[in-house]
Amino acid sequence: MCELLGMSANVPTDLCFSLRGLVRRGGETGPHRDGWGIGLYAGRGCRLFHDPRPSVVSEVAKLIQGQAIKSHIIISHIRKATHGRVCLENTHPFARELWGSTWLFAHNGGLKGSKALALEQYRPIGTTDSERAFCWMLGRIRARYPERPRRAEPLWRLIASLGRELEALGTCNFLMSDSRCLYAYCSSTLHWITRRAPFGEAHSIDTGEIVDFCRETTAQDVVTVIASKPLTDNERWHPIPRASFQVFVEGIPLLGQ
Amino acid sequence: MCELLGMSANVPTDLCFSLRGLVRRGGETGPHRDGWGIGLYAGRGCRLFHDPRPSVVSEVAKLIQGQAIKSHIIISHIRKATHGRVCLENTHPFARELWGSTWLFAHNGGLKGSKALALEQYRPIGTTDSERAFCWMLGRIRARYPERPRRAEPLWRLIASLGRELEALGTCNFLMSDSRCLYAYCSSTLHWITRRAPFGEAHSIDTGEIVDFCRETTAQDVVTVIASKPLTDNERWHPIPRASFQVFVEGIPLLGQ
Repeated sequence: MCELLGMSANVPTDLCFSLRGLVRRGGETGPHRDGWGIGLYAGRGCRLFHDPRPSVVSEVAKLIQGQAIKSHIIISHIRKATHGRVCLENTHPFARELWGSTWLFAHNGGLKGSKALALEQYRPIGTTDSERAFCWMLGRIRARYPERPRRAEPLWRLIASLGRELEALGTCNFLMSDSRCLYAYCSSTLHWITRRAPFGEAHSIDTGEIVDFCRETTAQDVVTVIASKPLTDNERWHPIPRASFQVFVEGIPLLGQ
Repeated sequence: MCELLGMSANVPTDLCFSLRGLVRRGGETGPHRDGWGIGLYAGRGCRLFHDPRPSVVSEVAKLIQGQAIKSHIIISHIRKATHGRVCLENTHPFARELWGSTWLFAHNGGLKGSKALALEQYRPIGTTDSERAFCWMLGRIRARYPERPRRAEPLWRLIASLGRELEALGTCNFLMSDSRCLYAYCSSTLHWITRRAPFGEAHSIDTGEIVDFCRETTAQDVVTVIASKPLTDNERWHPIPRASFQVFVEGIPLLGQ
């Protein structure tokens, strides 16, 4: 299995504190040694970093933390390979273009019979069940909406229903984004926390580090972090119920179904 | 205008010596201050780095050189913006998936009337003429070959003819790859050099550095470097003739037309 980490915020925000915890799980406090990746949107653009080595020894991880790259939507993934060998093309998050936007996808779980998922426009580059599921979903979204729909809710319901179809094949926790919204589907474990004023201190489970978000934020900031398992032990993380879908826009949880 | 740098090799090779010269042109020995990017294939996978800041001050450039990341095909680009503002999504090389392979594209020149290029499957994310031309080309390739053709030559001829169509709109020097071959189209300036045994010394125009490739290679290595302008002044670089197309496979120039 793997671990997911995502962020949705109303201002460009760095994810350094959470990321320092996650990368420790990639070979030190956790067994996820089979590579890691991160995608950070900047407006319509997207920075993507993939490293098939454990995140805890990754030079790319050091660079991202040293630069404190800010973004309004981030998706990261540390991998413990269960399906597909350890190599660059099997490292999440996967990226494709739809409607002139970069879509990102990272998945935790195993999908039996994923080869039966019929592909249309999008083809996998690697050999994971996860990338195939992503290509299948994008093909279905594109077939239903050749152009971006004016209203967002029908698109959200479609993504939720595709998540439920995938869940029939096994465990399907995923984070996905189209550069506007962060979509989360939970079939077993995903947790989120929204931090906003009045900000407090947070204590990292993995590093022991304490951060005072008062010093790093303004009163208007709204930042939601989503992770497979809580990353801090002195805050209240909300589990996403099993078999349910949640959208985050500018840090705010908007729809659960 | 911008500068292009590419590499095709029969063994995974780092491009550090050439890259050190190129990044100096990004704000120091040259005027290309509007961002830079690089794509490095690793088998079917691809590492992509984009930075809208000048390459000469880029932390990402330092990381790639420090790590000496090796690849069999590399495409890099330093930008002087002429069309589209300076931002991440306008930074070359651009990437899309076709036939389950990552395609990369970087362009030097200006294409008048590029908005008239009819798009099919692929849409631009940013606002450059270059990305639109890439999307147009991939759409045309896909329309002609919904699946990868068995024989490579007809595909090469198609890409050459698309290059000629683009050239009718202005200056069109490009490097493109499908992870198997490196394609180069020259409408004004592109130069290449193939280094193979017996290897000699090379002297960088931009850094003054001298490298002895004997010490860095084996007798079987074949490495071709392609650049807008020669990067060394003691070797013989071959200009690609104007209005012509060249394919490189495993370091070897295979087809010029």
